[in-house]
Amino acid sequence: MPLQPWMKLLSTDDHLIEHPRVWTDRLPKRFQEAGPRIVEMPQQGKAPAEVWKYEDRIYPYIGLNAVAGKDLTEFGTEPTRYDDMIPGCYDPKARVTDMDIDGVWGGVNFPTFPRYAGTVFLEAKDKELALLGIKAWNDFCLDEWCATAPDRFIPIMLIPLWDIDASIEEIRRCHAKGAKCIGFPENPVPLGLPSFHTDHWDRLFDVVEELDMPLTMHFGTSGRAPSTAPEAPFAVTIALFATNSMYALADILFSPLLHRHPKLKIGLSEGGIGWIPYMLERSDMTWERHRHYQNINQEVRPSDLFRQHFHGCFIDDLFGVRNRHDIGIDNITWECDYPHSDSYWPHSRKRAAEAFVDVPDDEVHKMVELNVRRLYNFPG
Amino acid sequence: MPLQPWMKLLSTDDHLIEHPRVWTDRLPKRFQEAGPRIVEMPQQGKAPAEVWKYEDRIYPYIGLNAVAGKDLTEFGTEPTRYDDMIPGCYDPKARVTDMDIDGVWGGVNFPTFPRYAGTVFLEAKDKELALLGIKAWNDFCLDEWCATAPDRFIPIMLIPLWDIDASIEEIRRCHAKGAKCIGFPENPVPLGLPSFHTDHWDRLFDVVEELDMPLTMHFGTSGRAPSTAPEAPFAVTIALFATNSMYALADILFSPLLHRHPKLKIGLSEGGIGWIPYMLERSDMTWERHRHYQNINQEVRPSDLFRQHFHGCFIDDLFGVRNRHDIGIDNITWECDYPHSDSYWPHSRKRAAEAFVDVPDDEVHKMVELNVRRLYNFPG
Repeated sequence: MPLQPWMKLLSTDDHLIEHPRVWTDRLPKRFQEAGPRIVEMPQQGKAPAEVWKYEDRIYPYIGLNAVAGKDLTEFGTEPTRYDDMIPGCYDPKARVTDMDIDGVWGGVNFPTFPRYAGTVFLEAKDKELALLGIKAWNDFCLDEWCATAPDRFIPIMLIPLWDIDASIEEIRRCHAKGAKCIGFPENPVPLGLPSFHTDHWDRLFDVVEELDMPLTMHFGTSGRAPSTAPEAPFAVTIALFATNSMYALADILFSPLLHRHPKLKIGLSEGGIGWIPYMLERSDMTWERHRHYQNINQEVRPSDLFRQHFHGCFIDDLFGVRNRHDIGIDNITWECDYPHSDSYWPHSRKRAAEAFVDVPDDEVHKMVELNVRRLYNFPG
Repeated sequence: MPLQPWMKLLSTDDHLIEHPRVWTDRLPKRFQEAGPRIVEMPQQGKAPAEVWKYEDRIYPYIGLNAVAGKDLTEFGTEPTRYDDMIPGCYDPKARVTDMDIDGVWGGVNFPTFPRYAGTVFLEAKDKELALLGIKAWNDFCLDEWCATAPDRFIPIMLIPLWDIDASIEEIRRCHAKGAKCIGFPENPVPLGLPSFHTDHWDRLFDVVEELDMPLTMHFGTSGRAPSTAPEAPFAVTIALFATNSMYALADILFSPLLHRHPKLKIGLSEGGIGWIPYMLERSDMTWERHRHYQNINQEVRPSDLFRQHFHGCFIDDLFGVRNRHDIGIDNITWECDYPHSDSYWPHSRKRAAEAFVDVPDDEVHKMVELNVRRLYNFPG
């Protein structure tokens, strides 16, 4: 068995559901009414739904796609109340138990209500409250969620994307408290923010480089989901998640970003890995044949940039695992995706063992544990 | 040498440039003024540009990306006059000579001014003229271009996408004259047309099935090009061509289209192939886990649908060639892309031989010639 019992599975893409008091426990009194809080919304023929209210907006999801423990035939119905979800979704002690059942040691838990890069706060009206809302989530993640099992949860943090100085200050504050990585949009442009081709982010990324924290770019954090037609079933979008990561990869490889920030590390979350060798070959061909007339770096091949800066992750990607050396054995991590519908909980370890059946032990160990420990500065 | 001298290279993605009289030679007198014609446009410090004028619109490209024969460092400057291009771009006799130089036997030549699926005519005001414009291009392609070397050019045709009955009539007319395939949009929705998830196209596709003509869906025919940021260099778009084909594939695999039209054949042009195994695995996983709650076919696995209906093509895709059995050796064709910047003209045969160096003869023969002859009903 190449996945040995002593190898600890560390996931770079899991999700936590915020409990109802994350913000009410932390925001000053004057912001209690406008800050994120759970309200009840009538539903015909059943118990009222619990939804988030923030300023004057209703966000009708509490546990987006939190289906862990349900049968495949029950997928597709979003939980509308906390008691529609298993406690491991929102209770860190129960999460540890669920990870034990699943044979998973730990990992990065993305936010849910704020979205994976905190963009709910970007669209808020009161930016003083929004900054406090970001800080409250970071404190919740560090002091409450991850503190439950500090050797198992890898703390991710959010930043006030609209304010470079406040972002730098918050990164330094949270890094000092133990934060290991930053949720960042896969593309800032659709969010109304400057692109990676501008110098807007330079001071921020200087600090990120200095503190050696990966930017984790989760599928969908640009606010754009792959969509083809009004009548297309959601399966089309699910099948196309990777295209968002492909966009992010090409966008960044042909931008000045990594040439200006040679120590930056970027994780592409929930995008799979099996497409990466094609994209590296295609990007190199593009660079070979088309760099001469374009304002792009003329010295470094895109595939070399990839191997220095990027890592991807996968759950179920036998083709990608088989072609791991065309990606880079140091550039691959594993994900569990608890409690979402792509996760195999409570059989994640069994499924991973199947995927790795033909892979040498040392390579498996890198992909499931050692790469994460190195990239996220999370020693065992 | 696995690419044997007796194997004839047939490309499923080449391009012809229309000469200035394609429409003026064919349109009735009353439409001469409004139909597509070449006009001169002043350019500072050099000879006037030749551009297409159609109704009251100027289309400032005559030979989009027609760079064959230029050095890599000269790429990026679009030809503005016919004499900026080598004659093989717009003269079928010179094209045959250029194919001989290149070691290429023949292939499908997509239109340029009408765009690859004829959508210039879809946006025209006068639909009587637009229909005549479509017919004129089809007649030009069949009677003038392909007639120059009927055993080497595989005739593609365009249809009036806005009118199902007129499309059916034109398909029957051109099929009788020898047309072998139909340029069709990779996604009709961004063009303002009904999606593949509706029954809008059923009567049309019934006829396409009956006549056994592949739909060739060229990258970009939806009118959407991959784009990430206003400042992003064009290299980002070039590197991402495949994502359009991935969108088309997922859209169609999870639509009723191929279940209603079990004999339909679809070619994905200029999208590469190295990403296909990942997309098939991902689509099957999506179907396995997410079909139960969605309005999608519950019986047929997406990868089986792919192998029955789709073919892709490649120029430079060593990773795809190596993983050809995960795609399907009967589902792969080769492309030359003359006279565009991705083409290796005049070294296409040499480059193909390098790509196939480790591939058995019979498999090479399928990919470069036999699959095309079978799919396009083009016996040698």
